[in-house]
Amino acid sequence: MKINLRNKSKTGLPPGSLIFSGHERNHEVKIEQIKYSAENFSESIVHTVDDIDVSDASNNVYWINLNGVHDPNVIKKIGEKFNIHKLVLEDILNTHQRPKVDFYNEHVYAVIKMLIYDTNTKSVDSEQVSVVMGPNYLISFQEKIGDVFEPLRNRIRNSAGKIRTLGTDYLLYAILDIIVDNYFLLLENLGEEVEKYEANLIENADKEILHRIYYLKRENLLLRNAVWPVRELVSRFEKTDSNLIKKKNIIYFRDLYDHTIQVIDNVEIYRDLLSGLIELYYTGTGNRTNEVMKVLTIIATIFIPLTFIAGIYGMNFKYMPELEWHYAYFVVWGLMIVLFILMMWYFKRRKWL
Amino acid sequence: MKINLRNKSKTGLPPGSLIFSGHERNHEVKIEQIKYSAENFSESIVHTVDDIDVSDASNNVYWINLNGVHDPNVIKKIGEKFNIHKLVLEDILNTHQRPKVDFYNEHVYAVIKMLIYDTNTKSVDSEQVSVVMGPNYLISFQEKIGDVFEPLRNRIRNSAGKIRTLGTDYLLYAILDIIVDNYFLLLENLGEEVEKYEANLIENADKEILHRIYYLKRENLLLRNAVWPVRELVSRFEKTDSNLIKKKNIIYFRDLYDHTIQVIDNVEIYRDLLSGLIELYYTGTGNRTNEVMKVLTIIATIFIPLTFIAGIYGMNFKYMPELEWHYAYFVVWGLMIVLFILMMWYFKRRKWL
Amino acid sequence: MKINLRNKSKTGLPPGSLIFSGHERNHEVKIEQIKYSAENFSESIVHTVDDIDVSDASNNVYWINLNGVHDPNVIKKIGEKFNIHKLVLEDILNTHQRPKVDFYNEHVYAVIKMLIYDTNTKSVDSEQVSVVMGPNYLISFQEKIGDVFEPLRNRIRNSAGKIRTLGTDYLLYAILDIIVDNYFLLLENLGEEVEKYEANLIENADKEILHRIYYLKRENLLLRNAVWPVRELVSRFEKTDSNLIKKKNIIYFRDLYDHTIQVIDNVEIYRDLLSGLIELYYTGTGNRTNEVMKVLTIIATIFIPLTFIAGIYGMNFKYMPELEWHYAYFVVWGLMIVLFILMMWYFKRRKWL
Amino acid sequence: MKINLRNKSKTGLPPGSLIFSGHERNHEVKIEQIKYSAENFSESIVHTVDDIDVSDASNNVYWINLNGVHDPNVIKKIGEKFNIHKLVLEDILNTHQRPKVDFYNEHVYAVIKMLIYDTNTKSVDSEQVSVVMGPNYLISFQEKIGDVFEPLRNRIRNSAGKIRTLGTDYLLYAILDIIVDNYFLLLENLGEEVEKYEANLIENADKEILHRIYYLKRENLLLRNAVWPVRELVSRFEKTDSNLIKKKNIIYFRDLYDHTIQVIDNVEIYRDLLSGLIELYYTGTGNRTNEVMKVLTIIATIFIPLTFIAGIYGMNFKYMPELEWHYAYFVVWGLMIVLFILMMWYFKRRKWL
Amino acid sequence: MKINLRNKSKTGLPPGSLIFSGHERNHEVKIEQIKYSAENFSESIVHTVDDIDVSDASNNVYWINLNGVHDPNVIKKIGEKFNIHKLVLEDILNTHQRPKVDFYNEHVYAVIKMLIYDTNTKSVDSEQVSVVMGPNYLISFQEKIGDVFEPLRNRIRNSAGKIRTLGTDYLLYAILDIIVDNYFLLLENLGEEVEKYEANLIENADKEILHRIYYLKRENLLLRNAVWPVRELVSRFEKTDSNLIKKKNIIYFRDLYDHTIQVIDNVEIYRDLLSGLIELYYTGTGNRTNEVMKVLTIIATIFIPLTFIAGIYGMNFKYMPELEWHYAYFVVWGLMIVLFILMMWYFKRRKWL
Repeated sequence: MKINLRNKSKTGLPPGSLIFSGHERNHEVKIEQIKYSAENFSESIVHTVDDIDVSDASNNVYWINLNGVHDPNVIKKIGEKFNIHKLVLEDILNTHQRPKVDFYNEHVYAVIKMLIYDTNTKSVDSEQVSVVMGPNYLISFQEKIGDVFEPLRNRIRNSAGKIRTLGTDYLLYAILDIIVDNYFLLLENLGEEVEKYEANLIENADKEILHRIYYLKRENLLLRNAVWPVRELVSRFEKTDSNLIKKKNIIYFRDLYDHTIQVIDNVEIYRDLLSGLIELYYTGTGNRTNEVMKVLTIIATIFIPLTFIAGIYGMNFKYMPELEWHYAYFVVWGLMIVLFILMMWYFKRRKWL
Repeated sequence: MKINLRNKSKTGLPPGSLIFSGHERNHEVKIEQIKYSAENFSESIVHTVDDIDVSDASNNVYWINLNGVHDPNVIKKIGEKFNIHKLVLEDILNTHQRPKVDFYNEHVYAVIKMLIYDTNTKSVDSEQVSVVMGPNYLISFQEKIGDVFEPLRNRIRNSAGKIRTLGTDYLLYAILDIIVDNYFLLLENLGEEVEKYEANLIENADKEILHRIYYLKRENLLLRNAVWPVRELVSRFEKTDSNLIKKKNIIYFRDLYDHTIQVIDNVEIYRDLLSGLIELYYTGTGNRTNEVMKVLTIIATIFIPLTFIAGIYGMNFKYMPELEWHYAYFVVWGLMIVLFILMMWYFKRRKWL
Repeated sequence: MKINLRNKSKTGLPPGSLIFSGHERNHEVKIEQIKYSAENFSESIVHTVDDIDVSDASNNVYWINLNGVHDPNVIKKIGEKFNIHKLVLEDILNTHQRPKVDFYNEHVYAVIKMLIYDTNTKSVDSEQVSVVMGPNYLISFQEKIGDVFEPLRNRIRNSAGKIRTLGTDYLLYAILDIIVDNYFLLLENLGEEVEKYEANLIENADKEILHRIYYLKRENLLLRNAVWPVRELVSRFEKTDSNLIKKKNIIYFRDLYDHTIQVIDNVEIYRDLLSGLIELYYTGTGNRTNEVMKVLTIIATIFIPLTFIAGIYGMNFKYMPELEWHYAYFVVWGLMIVLFILMMWYFKRRKWL
Repeated sequence: MKINLRNKSKTGLPPGSLIFSGHERNHEVKIEQIKYSAENFSESIVHTVDDIDVSDASNNVYWINLNGVHDPNVIKKIGEKFNIHKLVLEDILNTHQRPKVDFYNEHVYAVIKMLIYDTNTKSVDSEQVSVVMGPNYLISFQEKIGDVFEPLRNRIRNSAGKIRTLGTDYLLYAILDIIVDNYFLLLENLGEEVEKYEANLIENADKEILHRIYYLKRENLLLRNAVWPVRELVSRFEKTDSNLIKKKNIIYFRDLYDHTIQVIDNVEIYRDLLSGLIELYYTGTGNRTNEVMKVLTIIATIFIPLTFIAGIYGMNFKYMPELEWHYAYFVVWGLMIVLFILMMWYFKRRKWL
Repeated sequence: MKINLRNKSKTGLPPGSLIFSGHERNHEVKIEQIKYSAENFSESIVHTVDDIDVSDASNNVYWINLNGVHDPNVIKKIGEKFNIHKLVLEDILNTHQRPKVDFYNEHVYAVIKMLIYDTNTKSVDSEQVSVVMGPNYLISFQEKIGDVFEPLRNRIRNSAGKIRTLGTDYLLYAILDIIVDNYFLLLENLGEEVEKYEANLIENADKEILHRIYYLKRENLLLRNAVWPVRELVSRFEKTDSNLIKKKNIIYFRDLYDHTIQVIDNVEIYRDLLSGLIELYYTGTGNRTNEVMKVLTIIATIFIPLTFIAGIYGMNFKYMPELEWHYAYFVVWGLMIVLFILMMWYFKRRKWL
């Protein structure tokens, strides 16, 4: 997961310049169109922006989903068709936006980060989702072809819940809700790793684990960065007086707000737990150094004096009375053993053994 | 104590989907019903939701307590009977809620974490308590069969205090008060452990203690996470203009607010004290390494030079005049003893002995 | 100084239950009564609550001081006599309150921690002081028999300052002011210890000092906990519209507010300084380990190679030409001395000597 | 990049004293004048302040750019010509200003830090940019001759975007936008270095890297200091009721505000990541000490006891029975090899090998 | 620089007691009186408070400067003459005030810390400055005889700037401005020391440097404590509706506010940089321990095995075949050299050499 940054190549360009800034992609932009009302439902793939048709208003809701924002022409045409401000189009093209919502007279523009945990690469995949919502249409922009919204499409297809009757603002809520729900999955993965390390960190601390904890910290940091602005984003839906958001649907945004706060709470908890893990790791390292030192000290403290005694009687002086005594050798052995026992007793008392 | 997380299996479902997300349980949901007024009191176990009868209004208060929220059907029926919003039912079923209160026209919904210290397992048991309060009924939802509310039931049975005359809002306060009181028990246990470690950490620091401190930190962190939202929850009762909360009872919520703040104060204190303990532990480790090093250095510094001297006179050169001298051996011994005394003096001056 | 905690035995009891929760005490509750106006002054010890007589209103101020809150009966009678809310009585009896003020129609209730540094035990003595103030009486509740308010009594006796003419609200201010002044004494003691350690920490760092710093941190933490709520308490006096607080006396509460902020500022400074001291201590430990290591390394690096050389010529091979050479022994000595000088030069260059 | 400080030599001078405080420079102040409207465009270098001519009002916008603020006379003349308050002139001359905006009746004064990453010196170049904007003129003050605004000039020359029709407030926005865009370049450089160190810190940690991380922290700190006030600066444009800022252009300032927040977010992330890197570095050092210790301990633990055994049989006692045995030498070798194997097995079990 | 504390001897005294609490001083209080209007200027030393004459109102401004606040009688007389509230007089006498401003009907009272860096003692000199400002007089109280305000007096004498025409509120601003300017000098000194240590900390880290950094931290902490309240103090001038502060002069207080914020910014930066320096120092210590360990390990690892070999052939067994071989001695030498080379290669590979 890369850190959010505005694109270098844009520096100095006029605002509203329609230049794509993000990962290079070269698939064609796929446009899915869903049209539904309480009674009807139809679904199609349209090939060009011109084919999009949202004319049948009154009770119908149109959901247009674009898989890919790397083609400025498509975005420009969408902009012309739906009369979207140039700065909004620029924001859609720049995939390094900070999550936010802007209320315009004719539509609402929201941008948010979708974070998905890729269990294969054990890393987090980040994608920017932009949504432009009008009175009877909603256009969502994904960076890649993905199936994250599939459960939502199924709910519409099957008319599960009241989704078909609640209008575009409810659809917008549902999209945001799926994205926030995916943050919980991320947190769960984080939580599982943290618990794994909690259990056996001190014993099995090697360099790899510390690197892994560092990356978890980084991941948590970036999740934190993604979710904090969402809090404000959602709370602005609660407080808005835009007539594009129906009063009766505000309760859903309040619910979403609670979920967002919960993500933030958990992010902060993991932040603290990860710091605690690093402390545990440090202490593990310190303890191991301590144990190594003890072994060295015990060996050296026992054998260095004994070797000294042996050295004494290895001297070649002409006149060394002890050398002549008959049991001297055994006396020296005895002395050494007594010394050894004293040392061992000392280490026991010091609890080094 | 697990960290709060929304359930994975819910991702993508419509809000208001009545699916239980929490620990799997398989006991039958036990429904206790208490009916009381200033004069009367009756208590019964009802078997199905249909048997619940709150029709005898005017002065009676009905307290329905459900031991278990793992059966969506029961919750759904309750919802239908008392006309509760689907999002509320969903929140009751999801046992990973953030504590909060929502004021609806016809009822108040509050959700809070009950944390109970289990002295056997030396761990904290977390349970979510939901309360739906109407003008003359209060429904409380516990996750497990428990007796935490028993003192409260006794007060009602014995008409202790003014509880029978103060209505459902006072009963709601009384329930929240018992839960917050249990936080104090948790803090006391925490406090006792912290004091135990304060007294003898530096001397007896082993790996187990650090692990224990880490878990105390974790526990404190989770308590912190449980209690911070309670602060806002309670303060909303103080400030609400809902006519379900009587003006004269607001003083009790203010009292409860004071207790909550006190819990928070103490949580923050323990946070700091636990960090201080870890610092003490580090220093203990550092000091021990230092002592081990000193022993090694003293032994090595004394005996390595002496062994060198012995080595010198263990050489086999043909012409080594000292070897022939008569008292040379004793002179060398004298030299060694002088060296030894000098070393000891040096270590004394350095305060290593 | 124990950390504030609500009493365990109270969990589950109704609010307003008059049960004492604090240190067990068994002296009789001493009741001192002072009656004064600009002209008159009288002072007496009353034996029962019934003997308290505050009937002579108009210009008289009655100050009733209770030394001891461990007898619920006394508190209950006071409550009945002065018409005090049960929750207030409960707060008076519970000596683990968070400092706060509550404005009622007929009286003001304030509770605050008195912290006194005991120079004998080098520890802090904490006592809760409750004050109930009516239009012409003020009742103060101390936990123990103490003489902290003696200077204040003397001012009233001697009519020093304008105290006799300024009513009960000024008396309340005067009591709070004495308590806050005692916080400064605590800070001064803290400051003296900190300065003592600053001067000689690195040199004389032993385990005891770290323990002492930890306890200073703890003390500072608890002072912090005691004084932060006082800030809000005092500011509520400034902003209240209760007619028990006269406009012209608000300037004194503003002054008190300034003092409280100053205590808080200093508490935060000591917090930082104590953290800095622990850092110094760590570095002291690290430096000492370093020095020990250097001594060991110097000795070992010098003598191990020399001992090796001696070992070489201690071998018993039949054919070792050097052994036969006449000056070989002296050449070896020379070699050793040259090696020794090289080592010393190396250590000097590395600044280890 | 130097830390912002007011100039020492100014202490005690009256406010509004026109004294330059900044790096000494001695190039002549270059004055560039651009005049444009939707249809027309002209560009010239003027030599003295008197030559500046902004008289042709109505639809024309004048942009005067001064390269250098080290000549108080030039600034003074500008001040007289455009009727600028003395405090503003003082701020222009003092190149250690905190970023801010002041709205006057006749003009707006904004000051901001331009930070440019110099890829040659691998350091950050800081320059203060002041802007005075009137209804039909904008005067920008740079410290040095630079080409940072060249892309903007090109846009005006080529009439790219709507820049020529949107007035002086849009021009002011465009200047601020270029400066904020340059912060992103800085962040990108920072990000690249951080990623470089993340990849190989533990393995290749040498002193230089820590120094470099410290300087990155410092750089990030100063960027933080430069950008935080910009947040408030830009938000004041959003909220101003000055009629120099047109309502329709406020949307651009809102866009700029979003970018500023994004810079701040990233600065905070790098702050955390850099702290994490230092933790990694510490652990790297600790691990290396540990490994060194292990090598030492293994060698010493193996050979010290063996050397002791050799020492024993190097003693010269008259009566040492083993010396006479025929295979004693080989038995001793065997004993040593067994000991060696035992040691190796012990180290393996301890995972030191 | 001592930490701010209220005086111990005051505890329990009535507020408004005129007792000096600060450093004991015994010089006479010197009173300087300056009288000026746009046209006139006169300057004199007055000997007693009674000699102060501010009667010639209308266009004249009187500036009375007292060098010393240690004589309560002088302060009392001033208080009587200018009708100043007793609490203000008490604040003037107590030199441990927190910076603040109080607006009274007839005068404004401001108190602030003057911090001056003493280049001789390399420490910071703290002095409290109180100012009482009326409509046509300003009384400033310094603790010591000092010349900090001399540049200001010179400006008045020479009528530099508009100072003589702008009234007492401008004079008050000018005094505060000089004091805040002195904070910048302090910061500059701090900055120079920090830069000095940044450059060579890792190489030359000795105990003294850490102590010095600790004192810089302490100094910065106390500067922080002095300047934070100034922020609020100055902002209250901006927002006051007191008619003692003229609308047209508020722009100067806004300028002062900017400077104060800048001091705070820099204080926070130095706080971070000093923490960073301590981290660098730690790592320096750790690196040195590491290097010492490496030297020890290299020496020990090379020579301990070689000494063992020598020890082997120093044994006195009767039957040791190698001893008899003719080239055995040289073979052993060869073996040792090979071992030595292997070791060196190993250390090279590990990058220890």
